[in-house]
Amino acid sequence: MVITRHIELHADGHADMHNITRDVAMHVRESGLGAGIVTVFTPSATSALTTIEYESGALADFERLFDEVASPDRPYEHNQRWHDGNGHSHARAALLGPSITVPFVEGELTLGTWQQVLFVDFDVRARRRRLVVQIMGE
Amino acid sequence: MVITRHIELHADGHADMHNITRDVAMHVRESGLGAGIVTVFTPSATSALTTIEYESGALADFERLFDEVASPDRPYEHNQRWHDGNGHSHARAALLGPSITVPFVEGELTLGTWQQVLFVDFDVRARRRRLVVQIMGE
Amino acid sequence: MVITRHIELHADGHADMHNITRDVAMHVRESGLGAGIVTVFTPSATSALTTIEYESGALADFERLFDEVASPDRPYEHNQRWHDGNGHSHARAALLGPSITVPFVEGELTLGTWQQVLFVDFDVRARRRRLVVQIMGE
Repeated sequence: MVITRHIELHADGHADMHNITRDVAMHVRESGLGAGIVTVFTPSATSALTTIEYESGALADFERLFDEVASPDRPYEHNQRWHDGNGHSHARAALLGPSITVPFVEGELTLGTWQQVLFVDFDVRARRRRLVVQIMGE
Repeated sequence: MVITRHIELHADGHADMHNITRDVAMHVRESGLGAGIVTVFTPSATSALTTIEYESGALADFERLFDEVASPDRPYEHNQRWHDGNGHSHARAALLGPSITVPFVEGELTLGTWQQVLFVDFDVRARRRRLVVQIMGE
Repeated sequence: MVITRHIELHADGHADMHNITRDVAMHVRESGLGAGIVTVFTPSATSALTTIEYESGALADFERLFDEVASPDRPYEHNQRWHDGNGHSHARAALLGPSITVPFVEGELTLGTWQQVLFVDFDVRARRRRLVVQIMGE
């Protein structure tokens, strides 16, 4: 069986990070499915998903990694062509990837105790995001 | 239901990038499935998949990121052992990952407007690649 | 159909790398399923999965990449708050990601000849890990 749900959120950009674990877990529970996988996907080229221990220190360290690997304070060819200033956002999002897949068993996500599902908006302006939550199982 | 398809392409290596969105979308549409997920997988240790806005600026910026994180112009232990000169290709491909999973709804990929499925060949010589397209749904 | 299995292993941390291909392939074969996808997931915020050519040169090169992108020898805000010394482990694991999805056909993984499934433990102390192997198909 396949069940499609969505998570809507307001994101500020500039590596704005959101803990969406509760929403994903709720959709899985409400699906009524016992075992399977849930894929959370961002239909966007400037945001991404992963898992992390959602505490301010780890989040700050993770953001710094991207500041160093794809700093906003340098030239980007994307910016020279499109003048929207989010060249670094594109590189970061492509590196981290647009989806995360988490197995569930007996209706519960198999996340570790200190592991949460993280949505990161790398873009440079605030916007609404609507993530796809595709739940497959039996 | 599970439907297996393939995408064959000729890749030049050296971070040669291919927009395979149309092929993936076609296979999903032709599967006749309504909702589910499609996993595109490269059976290779020197190529990878993600999504990106497929325009020359963003592609060049993304390539530069890999030139900096895993430059070809430095020693690699893989090269010292195997003398095939693609040590950086292995590090890059392992970092970015061999697969991408995209949900589909009503037979259409849930990609964003400016988001395409990207295949990157990080190897150092041209070759044919045959990607696995695994479509699951109902 | 959905079949849940586990892989248990002892990991030493400090980018300790394990080739788990044989275990994943065995679970898929024993599932009796013909075609589908297998998702291997680590329920942990300090370990990760990808694929790589599992030979000592490529593994050393891959570890060096993380030593440079998220060196242990620098301050981390996570460490300042929690004093567990694994700030770099969190950043690395979030970057690489907690899961890998591999299609299988006729009961066999579609991996390339030189491509193996890699588990990396980025934490700083030895521990047992129990990975989730979620097999879906028909």
